Amino acid sequence: MSVVTIERKVLEKNDAFAAENRRRLAEARLFAINVVSSPGAGKTSLLEHTIQRLDGRLRISVVEGDVQTDLDAQRVARYGAPVVQIVTNGGCHLEAKLVQDALARLDLAATDLLVIENVGNLVCPANYDLGEAMKVVLLSTTEGDDKPLKYPAMFRNASVLVVNKIDLLPYVPCDVDTLVGNARTINPALRVFQVSCTTGAGLDDWCTWLAAQVTALRA
Amino acid sequence: MSVVTIERKVLEKNDAFAAENRRRLAEARLFAINVVSSPGAGKTSLLEHTIQRLDGRLRISVVEGDVQTDLDAQRVARYGAPVVQIVTNGGCHLEAKLVQDALARLDLAATDLLVIENVGNLVCPANYDLGEAMKVVLLSTTEGDDKPLKYPAMFRNASVLVVNKIDLLPYVPCDVDTLVGNARTINPALRVFQVSCTTGAGLDDWCTWLAAQVTALRA
Repeated sequence: MSVVTIERKVLEKNDAFAAENRRRLAEARLFAINVVSSPGAGKTSLLEHTIQRLDGRLRISVVEGDVQTDLDAQRVARYGAPVVQIVTNGGCHLEAKLVQDALARLDLAATDLLVIENVGNLVCPANYDLGEAMKVVLLSTTEGDDKPLKYPAMFRNASVLVVNKIDLLPYVPCDVDTLVGNARTINPALRVFQVSCTTGAGLDDWCTWLAAQVTALRA
Repeated sequence: MSVVTIERKVLEKNDAFAAENRRRLAEARLFAINVVSSPGAGKTSLLEHTIQRLDGRLRISVVEGDVQTDLDAQRVARYGAPVVQIVTNGGCHLEAKLVQDALARLDLAATDLLVIENVGNLVCPANYDLGEAMKVVLLSTTEGDDKPLKYPAMFRNASVLVVNKIDLLPYVPCDVDTLVGNARTINPALRVFQVSCTTGAGLDDWCTWLAAQVTALRA
């Protein structure tokens, strides 16, 4: 039995759990995003700002995935959103079964938007469907404009690209048009937002779009 | 047969190849480092500056690991260092067998320092010994000072921490003392360099230390 066979079996098993999650989320008419990025690109910061800005408009619940610690869950909980922490203990990505267990601990009927914050890793989470409506990939300007070409699977499998830390553009060797161009070479259908969690730039557009997705799902 | 068993077998097989690599590198009296970090932390930039600064003092050969593209090998080759590109085609880390194949394509007798630039991933490469003398983990200030706590395996298995992009400290929410303190909570023996590939700060210390390792190996 080859390792490749095992890997395929792991993915098939994951896909079955993902399909169950998707069914459950559809029943609850709940919009779910799977947020992926490198470590430190700003997933938790974006989430903190999103929760604050949508307070009173959308009820957001969160699943936090981390290799170790519950630091991110603590950050998110401060803003009053229900949050379940998954610690993977060294695992490099979330799997659908872990998310299923987390969903059982959330009140889905009292949730409009579910944000799943994946482990910080631009490679492995690309292949694991969690049952989300779409993957949102964050890329910070400090990482450089070549990253979509170098880590194509994540950009191919995502529906939305959030370019974060645009306030740092004057200080880093990153051309944002090149970055977006590279991403659209991999995935021409990508919807792109340019934001800064430090200055707040672009966050209104992002939140308006999120709210519209929830509305569309319930129309 | 469980997946865990397969994973242990994969690691055992990798360790055997790593031991062969280590023997071969020892025979050549060659100092080898395995450079690991998140995507965009500055591995290739550090390498470019290191090659330039040590030009005429150390003969550096490079193994470039990437999920996709040979963009990094192209960058390094511009500085005249022999370079072999490994494209993992989606694989999230380098393995010792791949490095062994790359070593066969380099002139080890004409090399003082071998730099293996791993795939940009702060999780998976932690567990794969490539036969290097030591792992060097890069962390950029833009990633935040909590990352050693959140990705402990990499910091536990590394001997050296290079904190990169210290020129951006005025613009990012990162306290470098907290960062180093967090890293030393995980691994008190970590040697730490603080550098900026943009301003050149700290690069002399880093290069002096590298040259001293090569000298010590040949004494």
